[in-house]
Amino acid sequence: MTLILKEMETRQVTINANPQTGPKLVSRDSKPEGTIVEVEGIPIGGKEIVVMAGPCAVETLEQLTETARSVRAGGATILRGGAFKPRTSPYSFQGLGNEGLEMLGKAKAMTGLPVVSEVMDTRQVENVAKYADILQIGSRNMQNFPLLKEAGDCKLPILLKRGMMATIDEYLYAAEYVLSRGNSSVILCERGIRTFETSSRFTLDFNSIPVLKQRTHLPVIVDPSHGSGERWIVPSMAKAAIAAGADGLLIEVHYRPEEALCDGSQALYPEDFGMLMADLRKIAEAVGRSIYNR
Amino acid sequence: MTLILKEMETRQVTINANPQTGPKLVSRDSKPEGTIVEVEGIPIGGKEIVVMAGPCAVETLEQLTETARSVRAGGATILRGGAFKPRTSPYSFQGLGNEGLEMLGKAKAMTGLPVVSEVMDTRQVENVAKYADILQIGSRNMQNFPLLKEAGDCKLPILLKRGMMATIDEYLYAAEYVLSRGNSSVILCERGIRTFETSSRFTLDFNSIPVLKQRTHLPVIVDPSHGSGERWIVPSMAKAAIAAGADGLLIEVHYRPEEALCDGSQALYPEDFGMLMADLRKIAEAVGRSIYNR
Amino acid sequence: MTLILKEMETRQVTINANPQTGPKLVSRDSKPEGTIVEVEGIPIGGKEIVVMAGPCAVETLEQLTETARSVRAGGATILRGGAFKPRTSPYSFQGLGNEGLEMLGKAKAMTGLPVVSEVMDTRQVENVAKYADILQIGSRNMQNFPLLKEAGDCKLPILLKRGMMATIDEYLYAAEYVLSRGNSSVILCERGIRTFETSSRFTLDFNSIPVLKQRTHLPVIVDPSHGSGERWIVPSMAKAAIAAGADGLLIEVHYRPEEALCDGSQALYPEDFGMLMADLRKIAEAVGRSIYNR
Amino acid sequence: MTLILKEMETRQVTINANPQTGPKLVSRDSKPEGTIVEVEGIPIGGKEIVVMAGPCAVETLEQLTETARSVRAGGATILRGGAFKPRTSPYSFQGLGNEGLEMLGKAKAMTGLPVVSEVMDTRQVENVAKYADILQIGSRNMQNFPLLKEAGDCKLPILLKRGMMATIDEYLYAAEYVLSRGNSSVILCERGIRTFETSSRFTLDFNSIPVLKQRTHLPVIVDPSHGSGERWIVPSMAKAAIAAGADGLLIEVHYRPEEALCDGSQALYPEDFGMLMADLRKIAEAVGRSIYNR
Repeated sequence: MTLILKEMETRQVTINANPQTGPKLVSRDSKPEGTIVEVEGIPIGGKEIVVMAGPCAVETLEQLTETARSVRAGGATILRGGAFKPRTSPYSFQGLGNEGLEMLGKAKAMTGLPVVSEVMDTRQVENVAKYADILQIGSRNMQNFPLLKEAGDCKLPILLKRGMMATIDEYLYAAEYVLSRGNSSVILCERGIRTFETSSRFTLDFNSIPVLKQRTHLPVIVDPSHGSGERWIVPSMAKAAIAAGADGLLIEVHYRPEEALCDGSQALYPEDFGMLMADLRKIAEAVGRSIYNR
Repeated sequence: MTLILKEMETRQVTINANPQTGPKLVSRDSKPEGTIVEVEGIPIGGKEIVVMAGPCAVETLEQLTETARSVRAGGATILRGGAFKPRTSPYSFQGLGNEGLEMLGKAKAMTGLPVVSEVMDTRQVENVAKYADILQIGSRNMQNFPLLKEAGDCKLPILLKRGMMATIDEYLYAAEYVLSRGNSSVILCERGIRTFETSSRFTLDFNSIPVLKQRTHLPVIVDPSHGSGERWIVPSMAKAAIAAGADGLLIEVHYRPEEALCDGSQALYPEDFGMLMADLRKIAEAVGRSIYNR
Repeated sequence: MTLILKEMETRQVTINANPQTGPKLVSRDSKPEGTIVEVEGIPIGGKEIVVMAGPCAVETLEQLTETARSVRAGGATILRGGAFKPRTSPYSFQGLGNEGLEMLGKAKAMTGLPVVSEVMDTRQVENVAKYADILQIGSRNMQNFPLLKEAGDCKLPILLKRGMMATIDEYLYAAEYVLSRGNSSVILCERGIRTFETSSRFTLDFNSIPVLKQRTHLPVIVDPSHGSGERWIVPSMAKAAIAAGADGLLIEVHYRPEEALCDGSQALYPEDFGMLMADLRKIAEAVGRSIYNR
Repeated sequence: MTLILKEMETRQVTINANPQTGPKLVSRDSKPEGTIVEVEGIPIGGKEIVVMAGPCAVETLEQLTETARSVRAGGATILRGGAFKPRTSPYSFQGLGNEGLEMLGKAKAMTGLPVVSEVMDTRQVENVAKYADILQIGSRNMQNFPLLKEAGDCKLPILLKRGMMATIDEYLYAAEYVLSRGNSSVILCERGIRTFETSSRFTLDFNSIPVLKQRTHLPVIVDPSHGSGERWIVPSMAKAAIAAGADGLLIEVHYRPEEALCDGSQALYPEDFGMLMADLRKIAEAVGRSIYNR
């Protein structure tokens, strides 16, 4: 064992040590071995790296199923797609809602891929949970505490994205809200933080990967699509995430990015996604892991 | 007229000019004269400056009514107090909920002060609206779009706090969500943004006051309590806000700050609040305005 | 005495308490009464507020002297003007150098106003010190430690601007570099920090005014011109600075802003400067102070 | 060729297009093929990745030579070590100065490793250039324009670190200062930017790697030691940097980190550096490159 590893083992975990209010359940102190979240038999957080891919938003059945087929062919094992979309402007496309959920159900039936989809409102949880295999809580809702409580009362795994302005401590507290209600299947996701830099949409905080892995037993994945905002940046960030120790990736792919109703500039073309997956397999091997294959 | 003022009149408003999705209803282009939001006869956004004060959270009937009496005596015209509290840790005091709302009703009856109180969940809107005269949407919910839509469907004035991570553009879009549903009684509130500086809890962005006043017709107030996080910083920031052109203040006062269950370090003592009000009257006069008096 | 004041007196000053390396000489612990820096008989840091004004850069003798006369007429007591200019691009106007210094000397002779001018390089200190009454160290050089040491070896007062990326602690350490070499005439200047917000050029951190006043005995002034980047924002920020407790202002004025070779968009017209000074006198009076008058 | 690559080729480079002041010489538009900076026969910016390692500061001849031997044994090809140290506090160890430069000369003679060392002051350039093979300009001096001009007049390669608060545009302009004086041997170095997150010392901006590679022809390396501030984070960030496309690494190693006079917490133990190099070779291979070997 190296000196660094020895040091890490004995190092004091520095998250808020207030014995009354500090996070307990998410802490690696409380559970030294890593948590593996199982989604329809797919283990997230183990030696194998899980790639989730699909469109930002569900737009049409054709768009969704064509994209789903292509990401499955490329090697993704979970399908992403939003039916309820948080949009900065009230005049932007707000998602297809329940109709979009039904399309996700059909895409799952056609491809066999489990589905991750976002929930924005406590009143949507029940409905989204009928169609999705993982409930996503987005960056803007990371401190929507009533929603976190509903997620904690739910039986499905939760993909909890880091708030764009959340510290690591606040992020762990948000996860603690879910665990404290009895749901310990939480997947963390670094998706970029807001900084002064504007040449990319957000700044991916890669330091957060080892920091989170040290402080918590929960799996940590990375969203290089939102984290960069431009498709030509995505491949290098996806590779870097695996090299840095991430347990998975959440990647936006669209069968026709130029026609996307939402975030088209950050969606990969299916062809590029396939090539990226080949590269990711090499990086995974270089760090002693592999990409999960169905 | 000075050259600056001439320039401002002809200056292009720079918020997202996308004709499809850009904010329309909040823009000063669409309504050059300032909006005055009326709360039980109190005009917010006019020549008179309105001071809202009270505890961070409703804790007990005594705490609330004693504090309410003292801020009324000091010159506040609206009472603040949270029954539903967004807390970083699930193990911190979460607010008294509906019981707290009832206490707010009693405090209003005793003091005659209208009430502003926070709503965190679409499911709480109906209940909070029974007791509060202004619904507050907090910093962490500034982009909780389902909640903004509910606020827009509601008949009460909305106090919409700036997200700690929100740009001015995003803030105006959030207000546009409310206005686009038919509710044009929105009060904006600068409460500090998150930056690298840690000597204060947040960084009050005072530039935002003239910037907001130029871009939108909505009233703009300032919360120096959350914006600094420490009571000894609050008075100078309250004075600066009035000097910079704010239409009002939201100030935390607690009859016994050292016993507060939430944010006690930023609550003023009633004695200090009274002295601050005397100072604020002088600053208001210096900028050609006055503090609204019941 | 109010409870806040009592609390401040007993409050632990929180700057780095490392007994070996922590700042000592700048600390209010080491010198409870405020320092007054005297510049040709003008006291900076006392009850009277000192306004420094003039162009960003010295461009021509006419531009400088016309602007100097107008700011003197408006009530400024110190003239600013850069002969050596830090510019982002190597292809932008870099300042007139020694020729500019001579022009500053002439403008001082004509108006009687003492001069503050920037020094960017250890090799310039000797020359700038021949013409300027205050040496300015700019934001980008706040941690140019060799320059700070030269400034400490110099006999002139130093106007040390806060780095756009500097914490309060780092800022105080930078001042400590100067004091530790024997020069205790240091004026601090909040000029905006870099944040995610882009609607203004920088974010003025007004919390820093009371925080600095509490931690150090040195005078604190504000530069609303760089702090906002737009002339129409400057007046409200100048007023807010006085209300918040600043000891002075550094304001850019240009006799023809539209022709300025540097930062024209943030320079006031002389007419507007005069009107602002009238407003500042009212604010100063409202906080129990006055504007220093020659 | 993939669709992404086609898109990148035709994409407009978005750095300041002002034809008068925009950066020209650093732009990939002006020189599509990547620049290779040669340091004593070692090519930086080509297919091979160059690892520079050594102590933060030169402390003693033993410390330097022991560390130099160990990083050479581990596979580093360039030795780092500061003789002039920018320190936040005037009371911290400021470096050995010229004596330290002489030790660097001895360490180079003993190990054959070329040396990179920091220059903080225009007056130091001549002396540092006698001993160093690469002049480093640190983060705090990225906009020390007189120093950039001196570096441009110098014949040695320049390692220009990104300012902790500098945008990519400002960074490219800083490099343009050097190139515009005739020195085109500039190596860029991402070393972390300042953000609100405090769990690591800085936030490494990995998006900057592809962004810089697209905008400029200059080589780009990463400093994971300053970018994280903690040695246990360094290995994963070093691997991520190679996966993201960096051309090299700058890593702090100390033969006895716990005794270091500067930044000991981020220095690797020699043993860990050797293990990291083995891992880096695998990552380099996975991205079709290799680690440069003497």
